[in-house]
Amino acid sequence: MSVHFRKLALIGIGLIGSSIALAARRQGLVDVISVMTRRQETLEEARALGLGDIYTRDAAEAVRGADLVILCAPVGAYDTLAQAIAPALEPGAIVSDVGSVKEHVVKVVAPHLPPTVHFIPGHPLAGTEHSGPSAGFPELFAGRWCVLTPGSDVPEAQTARLAAFWRAMGSNVECMDAAHHDMVLAITSHVPHLVAYNIVGTVADLEAATQSEVIKFSASGFRDFTRIAASDPVMWRDVFLTNRDAVLEMLGRFLEDLSVLQRAVRNGDGDSLEAMFTRTRAIRRSIINAGQETAAADFGRPHEAPPAPETKIVRDHGGGDDA
Amino acid sequence: MSVHFRKLALIGIGLIGSSIALAARRQGLVDVISVMTRRQETLEEARALGLGDIYTRDAAEAVRGADLVILCAPVGAYDTLAQAIAPALEPGAIVSDVGSVKEHVVKVVAPHLPPTVHFIPGHPLAGTEHSGPSAGFPELFAGRWCVLTPGSDVPEAQTARLAAFWRAMGSNVECMDAAHHDMVLAITSHVPHLVAYNIVGTVADLEAATQSEVIKFSASGFRDFTRIAASDPVMWRDVFLTNRDAVLEMLGRFLEDLSVLQRAVRNGDGDSLEAMFTRTRAIRRSIINAGQETAAADFGRPHEAPPAPETKIVRDHGGGDDA
Repeated sequence: MSVHFRKLALIGIGLIGSSIALAARRQGLVDVISVMTRRQETLEEARALGLGDIYTRDAAEAVRGADLVILCAPVGAYDTLAQAIAPALEPGAIVSDVGSVKEHVVKVVAPHLPPTVHFIPGHPLAGTEHSGPSAGFPELFAGRWCVLTPGSDVPEAQTARLAAFWRAMGSNVECMDAAHHDMVLAITSHVPHLVAYNIVGTVADLEAATQSEVIKFSASGFRDFTRIAASDPVMWRDVFLTNRDAVLEMLGRFLEDLSVLQRAVRNGDGDSLEAMFTRTRAIRRSIINAGQETAAADFGRPHEAPPAPETKIVRDHGGGDDA
Repeated sequence: MSVHFRKLALIGIGLIGSSIALAARRQGLVDVISVMTRRQETLEEARALGLGDIYTRDAAEAVRGADLVILCAPVGAYDTLAQAIAPALEPGAIVSDVGSVKEHVVKVVAPHLPPTVHFIPGHPLAGTEHSGPSAGFPELFAGRWCVLTPGSDVPEAQTARLAAFWRAMGSNVECMDAAHHDMVLAITSHVPHLVAYNIVGTVADLEAATQSEVIKFSASGFRDFTRIAASDPVMWRDVFLTNRDAVLEMLGRFLEDLSVLQRAVRNGDGDSLEAMFTRTRAIRRSIINAGQETAAADFGRPHEAPPAPETKIVRDHGGGDDA
């Protein structure tokens, strides 16, 4: 099957939307790309970056004549957007999205769509901590998974077309039930983000002097959490508003386990601690073996070389801040 | 002040010990390096890597004639090691360590040492998730902090000598009180590790089918936690056994904050969630500005290019696992 769409409409042009634009163009998957976003400033940014062929703030205009429509806006805007595009959708078009939750998306989008289009919710499990049209890059999806959650009424051939589109951008594709997606993502993505946001928040509440020490010494563990805690706040607000039950269930398990660890620390139970800390190593090995992570130390972060032996960096006293 | 020691004794030769050996040698800071470790196998590994000049399983022999002794073994072994080296220590020698806790180290090591040596506990805030003699590399300390916690009886000139040693390996050096170190590190390092170990443990308890999905989809957040949860289990057991009070205090704050977030999720309080997720971004910016982190997306992890447009990777159906 050849992968080709006449017109791709991207409703929203942040990190994911702009990456799709760049990847689809590079791989020659579409003739025309229309870019819609709500704010004029963002639209001008997308135009300056040359992400599309048509730029508009009118969602209906963007989707007119499109055979592939992808919602790339925050999930909280889907209801309004679905209502806006519905009358302009071309019969036979595929309507998809990239939202981090799927049951809620089906609930708010599907009722508005005409029966002549094929609604196939999607979720590319790819991203960085950066947002906005300039954050996108065409390799974002390479080697990553894209989950599709087609309803039972969608013809298999249509799902196959959309899957082929994602594969051509480098993704692996998996289809599953929307509810199952939301449960797996709650523990894989949503609870980790909540926990990361939380620990960074705990640090933000420390007195200023201590906080600056935490920042200075962050390489000892804390900074790993700050990457995902720098992700787009509106997107993540919407995730927690729309996947509440699965998040609370997985957060409950996390808290139960943390109580056990907390007690082991309080009781000085070294055997339990060591056993717990040993078995977690196998999980990371599995992730590396699955090709989802680099085995390079420190995520492959650059390590600068130390100064040459002759450099005069020695001072006369040992204390104080060297920065 | 020139940085030079006649003989450096490394008691323990894991990630940190081997990195010190490589960096000190490269920078020409020492004439002779003696390497002591408990297990014959590890000693042979260190010898094969050419990390030192003298190799022994006898701690007393290793420190004989050394003017700089650094304990690089798990903190749980310090008591025994301090007793073993005490009679062989050269008057005037600096005795230091690299342990992640400092009050406990003072408590178990200081009573054994003769008054003729200078005991200056240290903690290089550097590391990767890898352990063992082969994990070391000479750039490990470059641009990172090393905290020294000299007691009030240590002459300033001796602290300055040790600080110059660390600076010559590329470290920034800061001196502080041992108790303050333990409090700052509890939130910067110990609680983040505990939380990371915990969430990886929660995943390890899921049924096998779900767990394999979590591994597959780990790029969506979870995998960031697995790096520090793959750190040396024995070292981390000892951290939690020896910095209990500070860890429980900071863990308590973390749990209070998490209860607030949990309630916001349960109540669908979008404004609070967005406000929380917004303020945490500033912390990451501070860390990047402090030179303790890369601003590159995804920690600078490599992103592979997508396949060329001509590649035949399209299949006839949309569902199923592509791996």
